[in-house]
Amino acid sequence: MTKKISRLLKQGQFSVNGSLWLEGDGLRFFGPGPVELLQLIQETGSINAAAKKMQMSYKKAWQLVNNLNAMAAQPMVITATGGEKGGGSSISDEAMQLIDYHRRLRERFKKFLEEETRQLTG
Amino acid sequence: MTKKISRLLKQGQFSVNGSLWLEGDGLRFFGPGPVELLQLIQETGSINAAAKKMQMSYKKAWQLVNNLNAMAAQPMVITATGGEKGGGSSISDEAMQLIDYHRRLRERFKKFLEEETRQLTG
Repeated sequence: MTKKISRLLKQGQFSVNGSLWLEGDGLRFFGPGPVELLQLIQETGSINAAAKKMQMSYKKAWQLVNNLNAMAAQPMVITATGGEKGGGSSISDEAMQLIDYHRRLRERFKKFLEEETRQLTG
Repeated sequence: MTKKISRLLKQGQFSVNGSLWLEGDGLRFFGPGPVELLQLIQETGSINAAAKKMQMSYKKAWQLVNNLNAMAAQPMVITATGGEKGGGSSISDEAMQLIDYHRRLRERFKKFLEEETRQLTG
């Protein structure tokens, strides 16, 4: 049935596309945005610097970090406050594992979309 | 590897969720919104009445219809202008086929999400 769906459409570049995220208790808390934020926190050692690189407000970045920490068994972002250098943030091993899980999840989703695009356009 | 991802998260209701749409030449033109709009056009015989039921602006509804007609080999929404009753709109057989394709696509996506949720939480 689906193999003939392409005849309903004009000539052109058609595809099935989508987005994906993790929810905890109905709240979206993990997806491409938080992954990028975590990676930039690790790179810069600072939530604020990471937010700036993403052109995201500090408030939004802290909100993402807080949502993530609230869902995680162990904190994903560790913020050292005080001390001579005035703190700095890093991400935990658990955050790296979650990022790695997300990368593999995205690969499976990419395959799903590619297969659906093949069926749509084939 | 993924089967242990749940230990990174707190106790709670976790799931993988997402959204899906069709793109033509990079433009999003079909998904749950347009499907609902088409079904309501068929039900009411009117784009404006359908928009109202969805609490969508007329402008937005007409834009969705125009985008859809622009991507389709044959018009998906047929608007009869003039005449004694002043027109009225209906959807084509092709639109019904596209809606049916979309329903099956959503079922496959639902299965994908359910399987990923099982892996995440299992």
